[in-house]
Amino acid sequence: MSFKNFKCVPKIIFGRGSFVQLDSVLAAERKTDDDFVVFLVDDVHRQRPLANRIPTHNGDQVIYVNVDDEPTTDQVDGLTEQVQTVSHKAPVSVVGIGGGSTLDLAKAVALMLNNAGGSAQYQGWDLINHAAIHHVGVPTVSGTGAEASRTAVLCGPVQKLGLNSDHTVFDQILLDSELIAGIPKQQWFYTGMDCYIHCIESLNGTFLNEFAKAYAEKAMLLCREVFIDDHADKDDKLMMASFMGGMSIAYSQVGACHAVSYGLGYVLGYHHGIGNCLAFNVLEDFYPEGVAEFRAMMNKHNIVLPTNICKDLPDQTIAKMVAVSKSMGPLWENVYGADWQNKVTDEMLTQLFRRI
Amino acid sequence: MSFKNFKCVPKIIFGRGSFVQLDSVLAAERKTDDDFVVFLVDDVHRQRPLANRIPTHNGDQVIYVNVDDEPTTDQVDGLTEQVQTVSHKAPVSVVGIGGGSTLDLAKAVALMLNNAGGSAQYQGWDLINHAAIHHVGVPTVSGTGAEASRTAVLCGPVQKLGLNSDHTVFDQILLDSELIAGIPKQQWFYTGMDCYIHCIESLNGTFLNEFAKAYAEKAMLLCREVFIDDHADKDDKLMMASFMGGMSIAYSQVGACHAVSYGLGYVLGYHHGIGNCLAFNVLEDFYPEGVAEFRAMMNKHNIVLPTNICKDLPDQTIAKMVAVSKSMGPLWENVYGADWQNKVTDEMLTQLFRRI
Repeated sequence: MSFKNFKCVPKIIFGRGSFVQLDSVLAAERKTDDDFVVFLVDDVHRQRPLANRIPTHNGDQVIYVNVDDEPTTDQVDGLTEQVQTVSHKAPVSVVGIGGGSTLDLAKAVALMLNNAGGSAQYQGWDLINHAAIHHVGVPTVSGTGAEASRTAVLCGPVQKLGLNSDHTVFDQILLDSELIAGIPKQQWFYTGMDCYIHCIESLNGTFLNEFAKAYAEKAMLLCREVFIDDHADKDDKLMMASFMGGMSIAYSQVGACHAVSYGLGYVLGYHHGIGNCLAFNVLEDFYPEGVAEFRAMMNKHNIVLPTNICKDLPDQTIAKMVAVSKSMGPLWENVYGADWQNKVTDEMLTQLFRRI
Repeated sequence: MSFKNFKCVPKIIFGRGSFVQLDSVLAAERKTDDDFVVFLVDDVHRQRPLANRIPTHNGDQVIYVNVDDEPTTDQVDGLTEQVQTVSHKAPVSVVGIGGGSTLDLAKAVALMLNNAGGSAQYQGWDLINHAAIHHVGVPTVSGTGAEASRTAVLCGPVQKLGLNSDHTVFDQILLDSELIAGIPKQQWFYTGMDCYIHCIESLNGTFLNEFAKAYAEKAMLLCREVFIDDHADKDDKLMMASFMGGMSIAYSQVGACHAVSYGLGYVLGYHHGIGNCLAFNVLEDFYPEGVAEFRAMMNKHNIVLPTNICKDLPDQTIAKMVAVSKSMGPLWENVYGADWQNKVTDEMLTQLFRRI
């Protein structure tokens, strides 16, 4: 048996209003006059006050990224080239400011600036050869755990799969709960549910150990304080839930919901948050208590999921989703154990997708 | 307002039996034939099976350390010199194997090998100039949180005070719950209570934020599973409680119990674990619920604390303890807020010590 040597984010700033300290964090990386920083910022912030608070210095690049669709390997390669075109020198830091997609883009660009040949070839586990550029994550949406994880999930030419490596992990994260206030309610809910679902998948998985369990149990309690109790400190609590959910997954694995959601997302383009909710809502056989509580949370917040999305799709479209979902070996192993291949049948998956 | 940029342990192995992976962890640091590792090992292990499992290679130094008394700056300086005498080259890693005292010795020696002039001059906050040698923590007693903290507490010529710095933090910890099985019951209890007390002090402190709170709340629940429920996985749970308690403190601060215990420990030589228990037992005015639950845990495990330790001590001995305790500004600020100096009177402290 081999034990995972878990690489965590080594530096964390947590606190309401702590965004003001981003400048001093980056100052430690700026050593010569031509050192510069690249800020990758979710373009929803272009018209918001945060745009004026980005601590830029001479020579820095601020690049607004569109994440209406899930990040792709092409997008990462394009951004990497854009950074390289402006300066022959590499930046001293890449800062991602946004939700999970933007954070994953920042991680991927920081990696690709030091690893040649296009990001698609690094989709998988531990294929990265060289350490990334120093990179910083500043979440403005909470739930995915991207701030804590060792992956950057990308849609590539043949698959949706992450750049999973120790080098992917942020060098620094800054968790300022003021930044997640005021996001659209549906996005808040769907992204928050990603965290809740992480916990359910982790706690019901075969990979669970006491480390992952402690984090997942606490993240789940925090989710309940946010989505059931409507706690006064819910922004801080959701930020911690997302981080702790990510810490749990880093030492365990997601499960059936993410496997189904990946199929849905890759073929139909559903974003990760809503895709997970659509998938989770048909998984009562896998996670009965979790799905029941999830539906109660939807009720409380008047969230209505789209229905009949897959009911009338052509068989070959469903077959493609089934194939993508089935290819998620580690996720299904977490659900069923080593014997998963006997249990994850085309028929079972087809039935699930048809109900979405 | 300034927010702490919290340096965490960047690499963590967790799991029963994971000690076998220490060799491969160290292999990554060994680059040339004359690279060597220093193992600082609590001397209780000298006659135990663990002694034969230490993954030594040619040129490595295994140094058994005695921690019957709390670690001192002299001890650290002596160990540092011992390492330097054997080889003109620095080790590639310093590995601490033992309880909190041994882990603190390992942290301190790793620092002092790169920072000249004796450890006493670095007692305080952020006085370390140069990064430490790569250092690894392998706890064999759980509770203090030394595996997660940015301090190495030492008794020096004028004070008991830690080497507090980002460089103090371990580069790697290995949490193998098999290693904490079979320690003497009193030591198990007193050290475990250090974790419980951390949580109480953190959760009742003025420095608390949601990060520290989430960790302390979970660590406290884990302590209850260990010390009240007698859970089947109690070794794993205590190991996680200790780690999470340490993570909580790193972002908050200890409180009245540690301040009193430091006075007791410095003047009378009580070890940290039992010292905290002695102090906590007279702090019902500060932490009523915590002290009540602590006493219930003592009852359950038939732990009987020594009594009347300070009752008949000379006034000047008590005055010395009071002075040491009073000097712990940040701890008292965590208890009372900015106004602490008006509240921490000699009289109040004297009364507390006389009851111990």
